[in-house]
Amino acid sequence: MPDYSSIKHFNVHFPAEHQYVAHVEINRADKMNAFFEAMWLELRSLFDTLSADPSVRAIVLSGAGPKAFTTGLDVKAASEGGVLSAEGDADTARKAAHLRRYIGTFQDCITALERCEKPVIAAMHGFALGLAVDMATACDVRLCARDVRFAVKEVDIGLAADIGTLSRLPKVVGNYGWVKEVALSARMFGAEEAEKVGFVSRVFGGKEELVKGALEVAGLIASKSPVAVQGTKDILNWSRDHPVNEGLRYTAVWNSAALQTNDVPAAMLSGIQKRKPTFEKL
Amino acid sequence: MPDYSSIKHFNVHFPAEHQYVAHVEINRADKMNAFFEAMWLELRSLFDTLSADPSVRAIVLSGAGPKAFTTGLDVKAASEGGVLSAEGDADTARKAAHLRRYIGTFQDCITALERCEKPVIAAMHGFALGLAVDMATACDVRLCARDVRFAVKEVDIGLAADIGTLSRLPKVVGNYGWVKEVALSARMFGAEEAEKVGFVSRVFGGKEELVKGALEVAGLIASKSPVAVQGTKDILNWSRDHPVNEGLRYTAVWNSAALQTNDVPAAMLSGIQKRKPTFEKL
Amino acid sequence: MPDYSSIKHFNVHFPAEHQYVAHVEINRADKMNAFFEAMWLELRSLFDTLSADPSVRAIVLSGAGPKAFTTGLDVKAASEGGVLSAEGDADTARKAAHLRRYIGTFQDCITALERCEKPVIAAMHGFALGLAVDMATACDVRLCARDVRFAVKEVDIGLAADIGTLSRLPKVVGNYGWVKEVALSARMFGAEEAEKVGFVSRVFGGKEELVKGALEVAGLIASKSPVAVQGTKDILNWSRDHPVNEGLRYTAVWNSAALQTNDVPAAMLSGIQKRKPTFEKL
Amino acid sequence: MPDYSSIKHFNVHFPAEHQYVAHVEINRADKMNAFFEAMWLELRSLFDTLSADPSVRAIVLSGAGPKAFTTGLDVKAASEGGVLSAEGDADTARKAAHLRRYIGTFQDCITALERCEKPVIAAMHGFALGLAVDMATACDVRLCARDVRFAVKEVDIGLAADIGTLSRLPKVVGNYGWVKEVALSARMFGAEEAEKVGFVSRVFGGKEELVKGALEVAGLIASKSPVAVQGTKDILNWSRDHPVNEGLRYTAVWNSAALQTNDVPAAMLSGIQKRKPTFEKL
Amino acid sequence: MPDYSSIKHFNVHFPAEHQYVAHVEINRADKMNAFFEAMWLELRSLFDTLSADPSVRAIVLSGAGPKAFTTGLDVKAASEGGVLSAEGDADTARKAAHLRRYIGTFQDCITALERCEKPVIAAMHGFALGLAVDMATACDVRLCARDVRFAVKEVDIGLAADIGTLSRLPKVVGNYGWVKEVALSARMFGAEEAEKVGFVSRVFGGKEELVKGALEVAGLIASKSPVAVQGTKDILNWSRDHPVNEGLRYTAVWNSAALQTNDVPAAMLSGIQKRKPTFEKL
Amino acid sequence: MPDYSSIKHFNVHFPAEHQYVAHVEINRADKMNAFFEAMWLELRSLFDTLSADPSVRAIVLSGAGPKAFTTGLDVKAASEGGVLSAEGDADTARKAAHLRRYIGTFQDCITALERCEKPVIAAMHGFALGLAVDMATACDVRLCARDVRFAVKEVDIGLAADIGTLSRLPKVVGNYGWVKEVALSARMFGAEEAEKVGFVSRVFGGKEELVKGALEVAGLIASKSPVAVQGTKDILNWSRDHPVNEGLRYTAVWNSAALQTNDVPAAMLSGIQKRKPTFEKL
Repeated sequence: MPDYSSIKHFNVHFPAEHQYVAHVEINRADKMNAFFEAMWLELRSLFDTLSADPSVRAIVLSGAGPKAFTTGLDVKAASEGGVLSAEGDADTARKAAHLRRYIGTFQDCITALERCEKPVIAAMHGFALGLAVDMATACDVRLCARDVRFAVKEVDIGLAADIGTLSRLPKVVGNYGWVKEVALSARMFGAEEAEKVGFVSRVFGGKEELVKGALEVAGLIASKSPVAVQGTKDILNWSRDHPVNEGLRYTAVWNSAALQTNDVPAAMLSGIQKRKPTFEKL
Repeated sequence: MPDYSSIKHFNVHFPAEHQYVAHVEINRADKMNAFFEAMWLELRSLFDTLSADPSVRAIVLSGAGPKAFTTGLDVKAASEGGVLSAEGDADTARKAAHLRRYIGTFQDCITALERCEKPVIAAMHGFALGLAVDMATACDVRLCARDVRFAVKEVDIGLAADIGTLSRLPKVVGNYGWVKEVALSARMFGAEEAEKVGFVSRVFGGKEELVKGALEVAGLIASKSPVAVQGTKDILNWSRDHPVNEGLRYTAVWNSAALQTNDVPAAMLSGIQKRKPTFEKL
Repeated sequence: MPDYSSIKHFNVHFPAEHQYVAHVEINRADKMNAFFEAMWLELRSLFDTLSADPSVRAIVLSGAGPKAFTTGLDVKAASEGGVLSAEGDADTARKAAHLRRYIGTFQDCITALERCEKPVIAAMHGFALGLAVDMATACDVRLCARDVRFAVKEVDIGLAADIGTLSRLPKVVGNYGWVKEVALSARMFGAEEAEKVGFVSRVFGGKEELVKGALEVAGLIASKSPVAVQGTKDILNWSRDHPVNEGLRYTAVWNSAALQTNDVPAAMLSGIQKRKPTFEKL
Repeated sequence: MPDYSSIKHFNVHFPAEHQYVAHVEINRADKMNAFFEAMWLELRSLFDTLSADPSVRAIVLSGAGPKAFTTGLDVKAASEGGVLSAEGDADTARKAAHLRRYIGTFQDCITALERCEKPVIAAMHGFALGLAVDMATACDVRLCARDVRFAVKEVDIGLAADIGTLSRLPKVVGNYGWVKEVALSARMFGAEEAEKVGFVSRVFGGKEELVKGALEVAGLIASKSPVAVQGTKDILNWSRDHPVNEGLRYTAVWNSAALQTNDVPAAMLSGIQKRKPTFEKL
Repeated sequence: MPDYSSIKHFNVHFPAEHQYVAHVEINRADKMNAFFEAMWLELRSLFDTLSADPSVRAIVLSGAGPKAFTTGLDVKAASEGGVLSAEGDADTARKAAHLRRYIGTFQDCITALERCEKPVIAAMHGFALGLAVDMATACDVRLCARDVRFAVKEVDIGLAADIGTLSRLPKVVGNYGWVKEVALSARMFGAEEAEKVGFVSRVFGGKEELVKGALEVAGLIASKSPVAVQGTKDILNWSRDHPVNEGLRYTAVWNSAALQTNDVPAAMLSGIQKRKPTFEKL
Repeated sequence: MPDYSSIKHFNVHFPAEHQYVAHVEINRADKMNAFFEAMWLELRSLFDTLSADPSVRAIVLSGAGPKAFTTGLDVKAASEGGVLSAEGDADTARKAAHLRRYIGTFQDCITALERCEKPVIAAMHGFALGLAVDMATACDVRLCARDVRFAVKEVDIGLAADIGTLSRLPKVVGNYGWVKEVALSARMFGAEEAEKVGFVSRVFGGKEELVKGALEVAGLIASKSPVAVQGTKDILNWSRDHPVNEGLRYTAVWNSAALQTNDVPAAMLSGIQKRKPTFEKL
């Protein structure tokens, strides 16, 4: 089992009551869990590790403290740290080259949530602004507390959201009309609207309830065949980006190996015998 | 007119009160309309025939008996019949080759609903599990009774759904978030949720009402110009899998022939004269 | 500033209370704002001009008169003017070539709404049929009055909708199921249903309220950084037609220039100082 | 083993000197092997059967008689048989619907060469016109005799080649410039030019030498691991139609099953021991 | 027939000896036919007109004077005229917005050669640098004189070629390896190399011979059915940008109208009667 | 400047006579430069570093010793090390999951050559088998010595080439016909054939000449504007995987930043003044 003790900006728990579930908490509550560069770099390395850890089958991502999932980019740190301001007197094309690399790395760190082989459930409360939405769209299931305040905040600081929201949010909810409206106006929206448009699957009363509920969803998923669950996640991500006929072919090729698992007879048998199946690690 | 009398596993009716409408009923009520291989092979040949039958302009697909549209794959038949178990001691790669062919054929049989040139309306009641969802997503319009119980059931038998649900369901409803949640948890959902997310267009009280309602929708579609209706189905399927600019071009090329139909002046004239138009067979 | 005084079929206003907002009104109220060829050609040239006009940052499109946004194509003019009837005795392939060009030009005129660099808000009341839906789907935000009556009307005149609805409507609302149902049946639907499926973002009481509300949305968008707003529109249109990874890359390349704007520090500073930022023309 | 004795328009041999090789000969020498509808329907069913026949690992396709591989479509039969002339007084749109189906079926018959899981080697001599090129581009390897005369002949009978040449030939040779020139002019080209542009891999002296050479290439391929060979064919066809990153992913998914074959250790061992490996049937 | 007399920077001839052929000559021989903005704008309007002119079926594009097809962009004019230098003190993002529009328009002007419905044959002699290659790749057939000197010259003036070469040249020749080498090094290459890699189809002795030869190729193409020729051009351009299965479908839809032409029986009959067919204008 | 001294399996030189050029040599001559896992992991980290090193503008990749560029995968190490043999008694689906990860990582290591922002020139001599071809196709320019022996060797060890050859080789040479032939037969081919099909750009006499020649090509490229060169590489890689219209748009967006470089005026001025320009680091 990998060692998670060196992780600094996140708490990593393995709740006893939910086998194979990891709970990752953004751990900078005094700053509303705002992100700076070291945090997203660590997020990537953490989820790349969880992705390959055979004792993990589902993951919950939430924010520490009572106030926020995350308020997004720590703008103050960003403006001091320099990418957006610095580069001294390099010419425009050279600054552009550095920005492409910087944005590319930042995007890749958030994409780690999507490429993680295990389903990731975002459990969001309080403020969930800007980067919060980028991260949420890279997760598989989104849940929230009644008090959540979402916003695609980027136009309010003079830029187009570039860490994933504009690419993923429309595909999560399916509705470009609504996405354009919230992305162009940068307005806040709450739990009810988020549920109505399908950005979140369920709304819980408060943060405690939310985290409990998220861990239960994760526990349910973790109790299924990991071959089936991880195949389903991968194939759905592929389908999102391909025509139906290419989705069908990819699925057939994938399942030509996956159907040779012991999990199918195990699952069928336990279905007949009405008992809980056990699946080998993956 | 083709001969449908040799069809064994489906009832094929042509209801007198709805000209140009075919009603196909899955006919294995004693087994909850569960499917085995001969049935999906026959489904393909039936819909390929209906597709080219000029006396058919819209089709309703429903399940016989009071209990189920279909409970999906007849798992018992499948586990005995052998694809999933058999192949003896062929090596993994050889088993994989057989599985690719088997899944490919199975997918193609269900895709027959989608490539059928005439709109297909799924009318679903009772249990509608696993393969039921695969089939429904390959239809054009989905209606259901109040008592319907849907589930993307596959992870519960240890596999990722591979006959179409993972490729088509997200595009039917548009919302990947909801699809991931129901596909990863395999949980049941009912008529109300199905309508809310747009998986079905309308909910009817009971099975009888449902079938009556489905036939009326089919009858309405069948009363329109078949050139217009079949073009609309084909172009919408194309659009689903292409960028907007390629959708526009394909539509222009398609309509360069279709607009030369007599149906346009016929429809316009009957619009002005407030009478029902008649269209030649197609 | 461009001269809009020669525009004949549309009113172009610049409301004093909303800086950088243009209001375009379809101006043929006596014919329910029905379109003939000269109108869509002028629509294209108007929006191509607005697109490049640095004093415009958001646009509202509405219909003059109390009865209709637009009833769509002026079928009478079309059937007399001749494309659909004429071409004399040219053979089928030659007629097809002319139809491809004609449809292509017509599509391009409506696509001018989409390629306009500034967000376009459709404000729809009364009848909004056929071409109305084609145009609305090429806009960025859709609002309507309580009395609006929508229909994808084309199958009722014997043809598949070819000016954009079949390509864009499913991507606007995300739900192919609902689109197929309304496109195959040509049935009317109202404000409530349009809001439920996400075709419109908000419903207003009457036309006056609607236009006022639309101008306010436009005003809000126009108060933001035009670099951020126009980038957001362009990137969302790109994302609609591409896989997520290609959306991310395109966004990174786009923002490698856009992030070098003065608007980012200006927006950040005014955020800290709680005052309204000023942005240079674009 | 399937029964090939009922095949009428093709000779099917299994040459003793090349294990696992099938030799298919177009068998209408008195008409220069010109095709009519029953022939392409039979070609499809023949190659769909060969595709699944475990005793076949590579296939040679050649033409009977001294004069031609095939002169393509039997224009006389086509003009009598009716698709191009008939349909009586159906309107243009209805004729178009029939033509779409007819062309679609015809294309699918030729595509059977491409979807055949085993490599197909076209061995062409004499006239190889029109449909000959459509078929050749759907094969995997192309060889010819010195006397061959190729032409993309279709524009000379008033139509754009629609059975595959315009879609596949540019991807076979890679050069759109050359393809446009030969397709727009319909001019003949011979063995030397065909080899220079890479349409054929090798040129043989006469027909006898050609067929012998083709069988040797087939024999060489048939002596390799069928898991490796069939995977290579499938993946190369996929790559042709996809970006590099999607080719890489598909390959990884494919090989996750294929690498678990016994053929890898068998091939490695026989490599070390310098003896010919034996591979199980596939 | 359109009026070409107002065209300033190009000579437009209709050579008597080749019916339906237009000959367009870049007419700025004293400046080696170097392009400035008004010229590419006029090129677009000229080819958009030729595209729809029913008396034109094939077009030759060559350069006036003995020295050059064209040396490309008139760098001096460009650096004075201002796009590359000007924009005063607009910020980087605003300059970028203007550059996107400017490049987009410039690209669209050259793309007019590609979207012209009639085949365009580039006949190149002397210097053919930079923009010359962009234009040539947007044509359908490329021919050259022995003395031609090509170069993808752009890196030598500090930029990546952005008017089409990097997008089209690899698809014209099919070989990315060669394209990368000439594009990264900006080195000259001559007629022999151009023919070897398939950039040109044929090499002629001198300019006079070249133009004569190009007109003959154009004349040959113009003698064929325009329905067949224009369909072939359009479908090959579509195929270049799509997978094979989408090429096949598009072709079937296209030909469902095109095969209903009188040109097919006319071409067949004249084939049998060994006489030259006549085709109606298109 | 990054520290390359810890690199173990490769020699990294910066030849004094070619400013901004790095020379990377595969350094395992005693084993014919065969690769084991640590080597491809190090290759990735090396090229990711070179990609961002502002003192590097072009890179040559060659093999140490007289006998081979590389004979590819060290099959002995691979079969001992275990991926292909090991996984003990995990079931097929679990082995498949490990294989997908393993192949994915391996592919990503080789893709580092392609995503390196600076052009990479492969200089190949002696044996260049299997993985050698995978690596060569991920480079930008390929050169070879007269004695080179290439083979797409994978089918001979029972597998389909999965580290890039099947995805990239056809796009490098453009000709699927030739690729299928060499990939299905696994036959050797030499310098002359490689040059004829365009797999290599130039053939040199011996290894010494080859490396000298490769460094000169690299030196030439390194003397150009790095903004222009790196843009050209990136855009050509994008074009390979996209339709022409998407290539054009991406190029316009890219150049909207890149054209604001000082390199354009610097390059133009030095062109006029006939002296060598100097470009800032990038």
